[in-house]
Amino acid sequence: MHRAKVRVAEDVLDANATIARANREDFDRENVAVVNLMSAPGAGKTSLLERAVEQPGGVRVGVLEGDVQGSLDADRLAALHTPVTQINTDPGFGGECHLDANMVRAAIPALPLAEVDLLVIENVGNLVCPAEFRVGEDARVMVSAVTEGEDKPLKYPLMFRTCELVLVNKIDLLPHLDFDLDRFLANLEAINPGVDYLLVSARSGEGTNAWREWLGALPDRLAAGARR
Amino acid sequence: MHRAKVRVAEDVLDANATIARANREDFDRENVAVVNLMSAPGAGKTSLLERAVEQPGGVRVGVLEGDVQGSLDADRLAALHTPVTQINTDPGFGGECHLDANMVRAAIPALPLAEVDLLVIENVGNLVCPAEFRVGEDARVMVSAVTEGEDKPLKYPLMFRTCELVLVNKIDLLPHLDFDLDRFLANLEAINPGVDYLLVSARSGEGTNAWREWLGALPDRLAAGARR
Repeated sequence: MHRAKVRVAEDVLDANATIARANREDFDRENVAVVNLMSAPGAGKTSLLERAVEQPGGVRVGVLEGDVQGSLDADRLAALHTPVTQINTDPGFGGECHLDANMVRAAIPALPLAEVDLLVIENVGNLVCPAEFRVGEDARVMVSAVTEGEDKPLKYPLMFRTCELVLVNKIDLLPHLDFDLDRFLANLEAINPGVDYLLVSARSGEGTNAWREWLGALPDRLAAGARR
Repeated sequence: MHRAKVRVAEDVLDANATIARANREDFDRENVAVVNLMSAPGAGKTSLLERAVEQPGGVRVGVLEGDVQGSLDADRLAALHTPVTQINTDPGFGGECHLDANMVRAAIPALPLAEVDLLVIENVGNLVCPAEFRVGEDARVMVSAVTEGEDKPLKYPLMFRTCELVLVNKIDLLPHLDFDLDRFLANLEAINPGVDYLLVSARSGEGTNAWREWLGALPDRLAAGARR
């Protein structure tokens, strides 16, 4: 008689992890590198994508847009001839504040995976729950705008701790703010020692070449096993 | 024989509403007006409170601080000799992204209700879930920083729709941004027609007298039945 012991999924995060693994297998099968891009509302995720989706190196980028309602960001990226797929979270519990693995799973049939090398999933603007739900990504990138203050790594530690790259955005505004960049970087180092970061301005373009290069090099880095 | 029909609470939002009503009864009994103050991370809730907690009119203000972790904001307000009580949401599901009525209920025994006329509940920085959970407040105020962009009312409609006052903060930065104030106000009007708003800068102090006056006048407005 066949006997086996199965550990029952304990909670919603376990179930999410199971579905995230299934997503990851689908992405791997199609040889697509996946980035989960997160930030507070208005930090500049879409503006930084507008600066980076056109990859001179021939890497083909697609975007999966997560929003509570509407398609404002997707419309901006589609205008750049980037393949964009929209998910809205408002049918959920009053409007879900994050993407989870099952929402991304539902979108997979609509994604042109054969036509892209890199998929960026732009999460709902929120510094809490998106950090708790993996969606099948290879790497997590977050945007922290200098207008939000130096204390954010200390106040939203899980988000800052679980990402591989922090884009410190809106640095064109530094001369007009009381923001202490050294203190911000010390707070970041305390929460996520050694994490990569880039100082960028989506508005002026400063630093965005480095961001475009980081993103474009991700598929090769993953193929070389650096982050698998 | 006694017979009664009881409607069973249907879901977590029903349960929340029940507890919010109990909180409201406790606040009413102590004659305390309550504001639920909400915004995205880094929009300036605490800085705007620093500008408004000292009420020349004799209205005594207390603060209930909601954060995922730490007490950075509470420390800032306590330095102004304001009674402050801290709630941290991190024992919840990986760090709750909002306050709910039950968390506020748990804090009530620690609140100096007999010593304040007005309690401001500073919610967790998030534009989605805080709008879904009433906590027993009389009025909801949200802060939207101009650095976040004109599209925010359209992207986070429930938050903008359910508040009685919008503080449009960081207007000192307007000369350095591409932000179109008229477009923002048109988006706000589309989502919440006729809602009150104030243009403010916590940094320069511009507009903060009007905010302090709005807050200080709330107990009398409520006593006159304007918002009950």
